[in-house]
Amino acid sequence: MTDNSASRDENEHRFSDEERRGVYRAIYGRRDVRSHFTSDQISDVVLARLLSAANHAPSVGFMQPWEFIIIRDSEVRRAIYENFENANRRASEAYEGNRLGRYEALKLEGIREAAINLCIVCDRTTSRGHGLGRNTMPETAIYSTVCAVQNLWLAARAEGIGVGWVSILDPDLLRQSLSIPENFEPVAYLCVGPVAEFEAVPELEAKGWEERRPLTAAVHFDRYGHPVQPDAADLLQLLEEDPLTEDTQ
Amino acid sequence: MTDNSASRDENEHRFSDEERRGVYRAIYGRRDVRSHFTSDQISDVVLARLLSAANHAPSVGFMQPWEFIIIRDSEVRRAIYENFENANRRASEAYEGNRLGRYEALKLEGIREAAINLCIVCDRTTSRGHGLGRNTMPETAIYSTVCAVQNLWLAARAEGIGVGWVSILDPDLLRQSLSIPENFEPVAYLCVGPVAEFEAVPELEAKGWEERRPLTAAVHFDRYGHPVQPDAADLLQLLEEDPLTEDTQ
Repeated sequence: MTDNSASRDENEHRFSDEERRGVYRAIYGRRDVRSHFTSDQISDVVLARLLSAANHAPSVGFMQPWEFIIIRDSEVRRAIYENFENANRRASEAYEGNRLGRYEALKLEGIREAAINLCIVCDRTTSRGHGLGRNTMPETAIYSTVCAVQNLWLAARAEGIGVGWVSILDPDLLRQSLSIPENFEPVAYLCVGPVAEFEAVPELEAKGWEERRPLTAAVHFDRYGHPVQPDAADLLQLLEEDPLTEDTQ
Repeated sequence: MTDNSASRDENEHRFSDEERRGVYRAIYGRRDVRSHFTSDQISDVVLARLLSAANHAPSVGFMQPWEFIIIRDSEVRRAIYENFENANRRASEAYEGNRLGRYEALKLEGIREAAINLCIVCDRTTSRGHGLGRNTMPETAIYSTVCAVQNLWLAARAEGIGVGWVSILDPDLLRQSLSIPENFEPVAYLCVGPVAEFEAVPELEAKGWEERRPLTAAVHFDRYGHPVQPDAADLLQLLEEDPLTEDTQ
């Protein structure tokens, strides 16, 4: 960052450099943890902080549609793990050859090892918020719940706690195992707990499953697919450098 | 926090106190900004950081399904504002009496005032990620895109930049205005820019639209609606105190 741009970017609401570094470290260093959970417990103090972070997510109409199911019971976990195993077997049938080999080499959950499991559920029909925003875009209840997941995930990284999102589960069976009522949607099934390490890059990148996409490929101006305007050259140059990665990992 | 709990919570991956404060300040101090945009511009350096933060969101199968449309053009904005006005008129018909009065007193967008508008779009059918996780839960593409929105929102708070999410828009008209192809889903329409202030509490709370829900009401153990176990008393006490709010606002 040049001195010139630094002074231009200052404003009275900006956080201190170290506080900003915390935010970017959490964003860049957050990982989908599956392999590195330890047998340590998560303290009530830290768990309360993570849930509070989730509870302060944005929500359309201030509807706060999220519910948190904290799962410690080993019987419940066993049922969820079985659900995962069956769903994963079916999912693997979509691959063959090298790709199947790579798929089978991935560890995709930490259901039994993580200190706790946490299911974040969305109440799509709550009267809280009085329908504001939802009349036009009903899916915003779900979006609000996903924001709660991401808040919790970033707070966890700052606390040194790993989070893994298990998306290979049969939702109907999950609903049964956790007694989730019909008008509630299980949005995220998370494994949460202390970890031995956070990997430097996402596991799917390290293991060659998929590459990181250059940010410049994802940016459009005024309309989708619109040709880049000449005055966007500086921005595109900055996006190509992705300058924060080095500072914060 | 007691000394005892502080030592228990330490681990080698935990951020410094100031970095953690940054993360929690962003989470607690993030606001859905509609009223306080100034006429200042957003620098390319800061915009690049926000987009990079979004681009480092989690994504199922590392599919990175997000696309960013940066909108500065006043014609495009005018069309979006008209879309909002019509959608808002229709939405207001759901209310009457006092509630209608309160609804009409709310400012629900900053489309014309904010330095830029930003539409974050999801490519639901990308081949990136090779279908991992999506075969079982197709909605995870959208969830990944929402996580990108929340990353950007929190990074913006750390930079002193306001973000407002406009959800009162007709999605089909929005799609037309921004030339969004059929297999792409507009997930979030954001107003982004420097602001005069961040309010201490959410506007919908301050104006009596809805109250903050106690976190203890949203927590369940092992199954939805399951009776609280005696050993959860300490956690519930901590949740009731919501101890971080004071430190970080």
